[in-house]
Amino acid sequence: MTPDALTDLDVAHRLADAARSAILPWFRQDGLSAENKAASGFDPVTAADKAAETAMRSLLAELRPEDGILGEEFARAEGTSGRDWVLDPIDGTRAFLSGTPTWGVLIALADADGPFLGMIDQPYIGERFAGAEGAASMTGPHGPRALRTRATARLDEAILFTTFPEVGTPSDRAGFEAVAEEARLTRYGMDCYAYALLAAGQIDLVIEAGLQSYDIMAPIALIEAAGGVVTNWNGGPAHGGGQALAAANAELHAQALSLLRPYAA
Amino acid sequence: MTPDALTDLDVAHRLADAARSAILPWFRQDGLSAENKAASGFDPVTAADKAAETAMRSLLAELRPEDGILGEEFARAEGTSGRDWVLDPIDGTRAFLSGTPTWGVLIALADADGPFLGMIDQPYIGERFAGAEGAASMTGPHGPRALRTRATARLDEAILFTTFPEVGTPSDRAGFEAVAEEARLTRYGMDCYAYALLAAGQIDLVIEAGLQSYDIMAPIALIEAAGGVVTNWNGGPAHGGGQALAAANAELHAQALSLLRPYAA
Repeated sequence: MTPDALTDLDVAHRLADAARSAILPWFRQDGLSAENKAASGFDPVTAADKAAETAMRSLLAELRPEDGILGEEFARAEGTSGRDWVLDPIDGTRAFLSGTPTWGVLIALADADGPFLGMIDQPYIGERFAGAEGAASMTGPHGPRALRTRATARLDEAILFTTFPEVGTPSDRAGFEAVAEEARLTRYGMDCYAYALLAAGQIDLVIEAGLQSYDIMAPIALIEAAGGVVTNWNGGPAHGGGQALAAANAELHAQALSLLRPYAA
Repeated sequence: MTPDALTDLDVAHRLADAARSAILPWFRQDGLSAENKAASGFDPVTAADKAAETAMRSLLAELRPEDGILGEEFARAEGTSGRDWVLDPIDGTRAFLSGTPTWGVLIALADADGPFLGMIDQPYIGERFAGAEGAASMTGPHGPRALRTRATARLDEAILFTTFPEVGTPSDRAGFEAVAEEARLTRYGMDCYAYALLAAGQIDLVIEAGLQSYDIMAPIALIEAAGGVVTNWNGGPAHGGGQALAAANAELHAQALSLLRPYAA
């Protein structure tokens, strides 16, 4: 198949496959520990991160040479198409370091208006969540399924996730807590996996702050394709990074946004 | 094979297999949401919990009729052997409800001195961690491996997990925070999966409070078989529930214990 015969989604799957192969040998291996990093200066998470981004950039040079690349680990590559592939090889490095299967590979495709294709891959479990052009789906250990966000209409029925209490300024935290006080259940520590759960109709809200652009591009496109809404805390586009509010539907988004606005950066 | 020809570990694997089959149909299904539970009075987590415990009790009646059973969902079954199977079909019901693959099936076998066989199973990922008689191992999507806790010798090199900040009294929390301040990295929200990561040599400490006996029996036996140490915050046996400190080795355990003792119940 020539590169042009591959859809953008096909290319994203190939990128995710390449990232899996590059990263998995480093996950849960002996010696992959915080103290070794400190003692030896060797950082296996960064090694895996760089190996995966290198593999993905190499594929893009072959399959989509006209597109730009914005990655976490290496310098921006300018394209001529007006489109950028946005890559975060390991979102959730602390999760990776701890052995929890809640980190992920983030792949997005964006133009000047923002991301329009998003993929979250969890290599260890073998789960992949993808969304583009108004349709989202996943594959995993128990087969494929279409993704659709939930219809939860009220904050007091909502399940809220965040990477807090570790991330964010005191003001960010106060905004988060204003919503958490109203939510039915708050859970922590899932990194990008929380966005995948939101797209999959398992949870209702994700609120974060201090994000980089490459942290949120793929979640935005995935969640929007599954029927959800993602903005910053002012209700504007979130793809530049910073504060993000992801909600299962517009009604719930409006309720959470009204509580977050006073804390918008 | 007659029941007597099965080792206790064989029996535990059969119990875990039965629990997987009973629980997985309920995981991540449409309608499995907090608001449905509130609106209809139907609680799919409890349905899965009860189905799994019923299946395990039925197997034990056949394979180990002389042993007692202590389960989360049904009344204690007295045995004549002096041994009890301790069952928690779904540890981490909030994780289950949210779709995160960090809940688990807990199976332990105990006598008057405490648990001596422990198993943590994560059905969705297909991971199983088992320990007995001084040996621990796991199976999962990337094959089997032996388990051994880490040699991390200092708190400031340690990765600490807990289900906090959600669980525990203010005093419990103060004890936890005394250790967290010294640790290299603190992560939240893994439920029983954190104990499995400790046994697997991925993390160094788990500190919890407000536990039931059936929450901690399997982790104790698993972690001890992998080389770790589990006690209450006084340094005594933890298998009665309440406060627990699990550590990768005796040296690290002693350091954390000295900080927790002032908060021991």
